[in-house]
Amino acid sequence: MTADRPRTPADPVSYPVPPQTGDRIVLAHGEGARLTRCLIRDVLLDAFDNEYLRPLSDAALLPPIDGRLAMATDSYVVSPLFFPGGDIGKLAVHGTVNDLAVSGAEPLYLSLGLIVEEGLPLETLRRVILSVRDAARESRVSIVTGDTKVVARGAADGLFLNTAGVGRMRPGVDLGAHRIRPGDRVLLSGTVGDHGITILSAREGLGLESSLQSDSAPLSELVALLLDSGLDVRFLRDPTRGGVSAVLHEIVEAAGVAVVVDEAAVPVCEEVRGACGVLGIDPLHVANEGKLLAIVAPADAEAARACLAGHSLGRNAAIIGEVRGDEMPSVLVRGPRGGLRILDDPSGAPLPRIC
Amino acid sequence: MTADRPRTPADPVSYPVPPQTGDRIVLAHGEGARLTRCLIRDVLLDAFDNEYLRPLSDAALLPPIDGRLAMATDSYVVSPLFFPGGDIGKLAVHGTVNDLAVSGAEPLYLSLGLIVEEGLPLETLRRVILSVRDAARESRVSIVTGDTKVVARGAADGLFLNTAGVGRMRPGVDLGAHRIRPGDRVLLSGTVGDHGITILSAREGLGLESSLQSDSAPLSELVALLLDSGLDVRFLRDPTRGGVSAVLHEIVEAAGVAVVVDEAAVPVCEEVRGACGVLGIDPLHVANEGKLLAIVAPADAEAARACLAGHSLGRNAAIIGEVRGDEMPSVLVRGPRGGLRILDDPSGAPLPRIC
Repeated sequence: MTADRPRTPADPVSYPVPPQTGDRIVLAHGEGARLTRCLIRDVLLDAFDNEYLRPLSDAALLPPIDGRLAMATDSYVVSPLFFPGGDIGKLAVHGTVNDLAVSGAEPLYLSLGLIVEEGLPLETLRRVILSVRDAARESRVSIVTGDTKVVARGAADGLFLNTAGVGRMRPGVDLGAHRIRPGDRVLLSGTVGDHGITILSAREGLGLESSLQSDSAPLSELVALLLDSGLDVRFLRDPTRGGVSAVLHEIVEAAGVAVVVDEAAVPVCEEVRGACGVLGIDPLHVANEGKLLAIVAPADAEAARACLAGHSLGRNAAIIGEVRGDEMPSVLVRGPRGGLRILDDPSGAPLPRIC
Repeated sequence: MTADRPRTPADPVSYPVPPQTGDRIVLAHGEGARLTRCLIRDVLLDAFDNEYLRPLSDAALLPPIDGRLAMATDSYVVSPLFFPGGDIGKLAVHGTVNDLAVSGAEPLYLSLGLIVEEGLPLETLRRVILSVRDAARESRVSIVTGDTKVVARGAADGLFLNTAGVGRMRPGVDLGAHRIRPGDRVLLSGTVGDHGITILSAREGLGLESSLQSDSAPLSELVALLLDSGLDVRFLRDPTRGGVSAVLHEIVEAAGVAVVVDEAAVPVCEEVRGACGVLGIDPLHVANEGKLLAIVAPADAEAARACLAGHSLGRNAAIIGEVRGDEMPSVLVRGPRGGLRILDDPSGAPLPRIC
């Protein structure tokens, strides 16, 4: 946001005739001049107003942060922009907040980059921006700086967002694959696949029951609860793209261990189970946007499950598996009859633009 | 970058058959599973390797920063991706580095978000990534975290980048429109319009002489030189989209003053002057990516010009105008015969995708 313009009570300069752009985004909204400043002032600053954003300088000036920092970023290209349980704006806040939270940081500040296709209804942009605002409030982060680019019709698909986030690392927290040991338990905070199947259903018109919706949610409170519990938590991750499977394969690669998942213990809601059955997809491969995967020392696993279950976002928390040192490094699933199968690591699954 | 994988000497798991994707980006490169991890490891981590990025966690863990922080972001949608004097990767580093620098911060860390269109040659992505690497080294910043999304053919135009940056505010620096006073001088570090006209020429085939190239450059050293000089610097900005004109209009709006620019004093290179003449564009409206606009107290103006001129990026530095309190708040240009005209603030100039 390049316009340096404090919101003083009276404008020192007034442009009596507002530019006529109709109700859609035009290329000039992205050119850094008058229309860009109008857009910033009328749509963005109105929604996000805070002391860091308000000066609309090239960069936001932030107070000192005590201790180590964490920094994360994600771009969001989900299609459709609006879906049951959320929209691209909500996703863009929750995604980056969650990346910070699972790293052991308290999320504080977000940047917001918009890439808008010429012709997007201004009303669509407004709805997304209000959703970003609400999600940021809920997640207790401030949108402190941003940028808007407009590309010609056909050069992008509606709207892409990017958020980057900065947080304060919680002192004494050490999480990561390096801390995982054979015997550790794998916990999930709730049902898998809700987000991915919701998006697929909305996009492809699968006609699933209307009760299914995205699980998009900020995990910072849930993570804080778990980390403050004093339990021996070794690794946290939000299983987004690639689902639980991608996270477990990363663990296998990084720690050289096997992970055995007990299929019957994985929480899956009925609609997702049904859709996955029809589509031939394993729910473990499907994206989530408000779930926490935790690896916890064996003795603390049940207490950690109970801790998660005490929060509304963790009420279906379950211990779904175990880290093993005596198997070939791989992700294994124990089926209903006790047999083990290898969970593949897909390299071509057609689930694009899920987030 | 979601794969948690330290670069240990021996891989605990080896996938003997690399996925066959040919030489182009496919949708699966963005799905968070195996191909995403291959891309991150082989293209991104190889280029950017540093201690913060290496763990490839959801967020980078950074050391404490002493004092106030600055945070900035920009998305980059320039077309074409490669142009004389630069490319989208260089731009994405310099742009965000410069946003931090002109705010009075020392740039430290960048995030990098990629939105890639399916079918982009891998070689193109590699070239851009190496350019990001080189620009980051030159600018003394580290790429500490990132994200890659792939969208289907036609849903984006080749490649879009986003960078967000974090820097340490220089102690005691107070820059902004609130410090601007009548009588202050406006300085420019060099010729205007080089970047914008280079892009237009490359895109539209204007057939300009090959000597014209983008001025894309990191301004952090030049800014440090000026701020360390002890001179009374009031406001700094890099005049990118909307050019010098957009910055001056922001100042007029924010400070309620007039700015008078002496047209003859504005450095413009011959090719840009010629192209602007043919196209009917004022060079003051054209984007720059390596120029500094500074507002300085009157008594320090000549010393500030000399200070800028002592650096290779400021060798054409000039005092181009003056802040005035006795005119209606507006941007005025003094022409060759001494007459004043109002410089308009375009709301529909067709210069899209210049950065």
